[in-house]
Amino acid sequence: MKPVKVGVLGLGTVGAGVVNLLTRNGDEITRRAGRQICVTRAAVQNLDKTRDCPVNAIDLGTDCRAIVEDPEIDVVLELIGGDGEAYDLVMAAIANGKHVVTANKHLIALKGNDIFAAADEAGVVVSFEAAVAGGIPIIKAMRESLAANRIEWVAGIVNGTSNFILSQMNFEDVSFEEALADAQRRGFAEADPTFDIEGIDAAHKLAIIGSIAFGIPLSFDRIHTDGIQNLAADDIEYAAELGYRIKHLGIARRQETGVEMRVHPTLVPERALLANVEGEKNAIMVYGDAVGPTAYYGAGAGAGPTASSVVADLIDTARIMSVDPAGRVPHLAFQPDQITEERILEAPDFVCGHYFRVQVADKTGVMAEITGMLAELEIGIEAILQKDPPTAEDDARVIIITKSVREGILMQALDQIRALPTTREGLVHLRVAEFDD
Amino acid sequence: MKPVKVGVLGLGTVGAGVVNLLTRNGDEITRRAGRQICVTRAAVQNLDKTRDCPVNAIDLGTDCRAIVEDPEIDVVLELIGGDGEAYDLVMAAIANGKHVVTANKHLIALKGNDIFAAADEAGVVVSFEAAVAGGIPIIKAMRESLAANRIEWVAGIVNGTSNFILSQMNFEDVSFEEALADAQRRGFAEADPTFDIEGIDAAHKLAIIGSIAFGIPLSFDRIHTDGIQNLAADDIEYAAELGYRIKHLGIARRQETGVEMRVHPTLVPERALLANVEGEKNAIMVYGDAVGPTAYYGAGAGAGPTASSVVADLIDTARIMSVDPAGRVPHLAFQPDQITEERILEAPDFVCGHYFRVQVADKTGVMAEITGMLAELEIGIEAILQKDPPTAEDDARVIIITKSVREGILMQALDQIRALPTTREGLVHLRVAEFDD
Repeated sequence: MKPVKVGVLGLGTVGAGVVNLLTRNGDEITRRAGRQICVTRAAVQNLDKTRDCPVNAIDLGTDCRAIVEDPEIDVVLELIGGDGEAYDLVMAAIANGKHVVTANKHLIALKGNDIFAAADEAGVVVSFEAAVAGGIPIIKAMRESLAANRIEWVAGIVNGTSNFILSQMNFEDVSFEEALADAQRRGFAEADPTFDIEGIDAAHKLAIIGSIAFGIPLSFDRIHTDGIQNLAADDIEYAAELGYRIKHLGIARRQETGVEMRVHPTLVPERALLANVEGEKNAIMVYGDAVGPTAYYGAGAGAGPTASSVVADLIDTARIMSVDPAGRVPHLAFQPDQITEERILEAPDFVCGHYFRVQVADKTGVMAEITGMLAELEIGIEAILQKDPPTAEDDARVIIITKSVREGILMQALDQIRALPTTREGLVHLRVAEFDD
Repeated sequence: MKPVKVGVLGLGTVGAGVVNLLTRNGDEITRRAGRQICVTRAAVQNLDKTRDCPVNAIDLGTDCRAIVEDPEIDVVLELIGGDGEAYDLVMAAIANGKHVVTANKHLIALKGNDIFAAADEAGVVVSFEAAVAGGIPIIKAMRESLAANRIEWVAGIVNGTSNFILSQMNFEDVSFEEALADAQRRGFAEADPTFDIEGIDAAHKLAIIGSIAFGIPLSFDRIHTDGIQNLAADDIEYAAELGYRIKHLGIARRQETGVEMRVHPTLVPERALLANVEGEKNAIMVYGDAVGPTAYYGAGAGAGPTASSVVADLIDTARIMSVDPAGRVPHLAFQPDQITEERILEAPDFVCGHYFRVQVADKTGVMAEITGMLAELEIGIEAILQKDPPTAEDDARVIIITKSVREGILMQALDQIRALPTTREGLVHLRVAEFDD
């Protein structure tokens, strides 16, 4: 069979990784795919820049448009990033009948509904395995391998930067600022780390995960998103004393009244698999009603892992070229006309355990008052810790982990506790994981 | 599109699980697959037996032949087990142009080469996701998601019975016999547990894993296989003191001179992911040159998890019906004419660290003698432990973990140590894991 010709938009770290991988493992890839996959054309911003891959066999230019319009190109690989120019080029490629592979989570999370509609209309496929959790094949696992299951929940560490920072804070006993600086030094965090530490990158990925899990449209702007930027080292320590690690998780979960989609620092029991995923690694648990809990672990970023997923998509695309479109795996796991709207719950409807830390001015009687307020609202207590604060001799820090409860009820209790005359400013609230390995 | 009609051979635990899953999640499966999947016919040994699933829509009989010859049947689901009658029926189904789905590791490991050759010839597909690690989608992950990688090694807990027994021995401090009896009581072990505890079941799975990883023919009879039946609780304890857990692993690994395929109890560093997979759960690590280490975790057996993989295969098969055969994913990951023979190494060529325990009659000078013998053969020492044995006051138990070494060299050293006049009978030897998360 004749080779599949790939045109690449953007030849930075990931693009070079893809070319290097296709070069290094080309023979073995052809042994698997049954045909060669060749990058024949690429567009870059600056032709004078040195590339981290061989480019002698590639027609290198600066015009992205020319590639998406080139009748010789079978597949367009979009590696520009963002949802501006990348969106226009992907839509043009689709309009020209080309299959598209992308690693761009931002683009898929925000514009995926339009893109997949256009692709289904044009009879082409847009693949995006590398957009979620880098080298971990979570899209294929959920979309194909678990297709027989009703997915009950997904919970994952999907941002390596945040996980690296939390690991450092936990094991090296450093502050958030120090851990972030370390991550930047090692290349795990961008110069502007906003998207990572504020949870936006994780929310992009969760939007994709949630849609594939539940058969709903991509709903990035409905995700409850907290980052790790305000997490105190003290709470990591108290959580550890109570037998938990704090992880930054993306969680998509069915409830009877709708689906929860939330990204936030989460207390995870220390023996749970997700509690033990360290450094820049990613891991995702998926619970299907038939299969039970399953988990997927690996590198969430980097040239090699991302290229692994991109090239897997290119191989799939090569195979897809001989498929009647009706037989293809649908973009969002469910057939396009079977994507349904579902109620996406707001925070007061989330159900889980909660951790809160409050500083009180006078120890005598206050603990009874706080636990009494919880009892009044029928909020069960899982664990209590009392600590002396660093300052203020008469004060105490009260740390409580509750049993599972509707968040709206918990908020009522916290409001009451905040209103006590003995309560100091600055109550800290975190959520506890609700799932088992 | 018209429904896919499935004929089932054998309607026991797994078969009933498949019918229940297709019934319970039928609507959602159709939303994903784009067409209905129906079990229309099934053959059982005893028509009078009560079934654990609804059978009112199924044409139930006792004649397997009639199903593989029924022109109305699109896909044959083989759930008989073994490689006798099951083999004949699968070959007949293929000859009749039917796709086949099976959960039968024994059949694929021993007769897969013939079966896939016949299937490729006939232009049909034989799927077997459920044959390895139950509900974990390891076949698809290796065959499709990691297709861009040169797979360097695979290491997995692929037999839940053995893992359950080892977990019990480790945490509950019970003997092998007690743990086995407990596993049988809970339904995790068969009445005749030979295949599980002697490592044969794990070797069936490793044969499939190794073939898909390296593009070699299925080679069950070339696998070095040790079970857990002779493992002493003492060694679990000593390994723990040295910072290791003992796990029963299947390992397939490239060396420059060939590939290692081995199943045996293995010391794994206690913080490694595989060390923390407990009970009847399975987990597999796959190391690809581009993606690095990845891991896959879930239930390795049971009606629900097995049905999850079987129905995923049925959905894939439904989609495959509209594919030009040249575009299909090859059975053993590599195109049929690209499966190559590779040298499969014997134990003396394995390279890894080793644990051994030896009892010596006289403590004075013996440790120096043993370590001198190791030094002579340039075998590095990772850790040493000396213990008083339960009996014989003058004796000592010497436990040594070596650094990575060719097993042939280590065996020379062990022979020399055995030959010492001070050495008692019964040297214990185990291997240490060579991989990182």
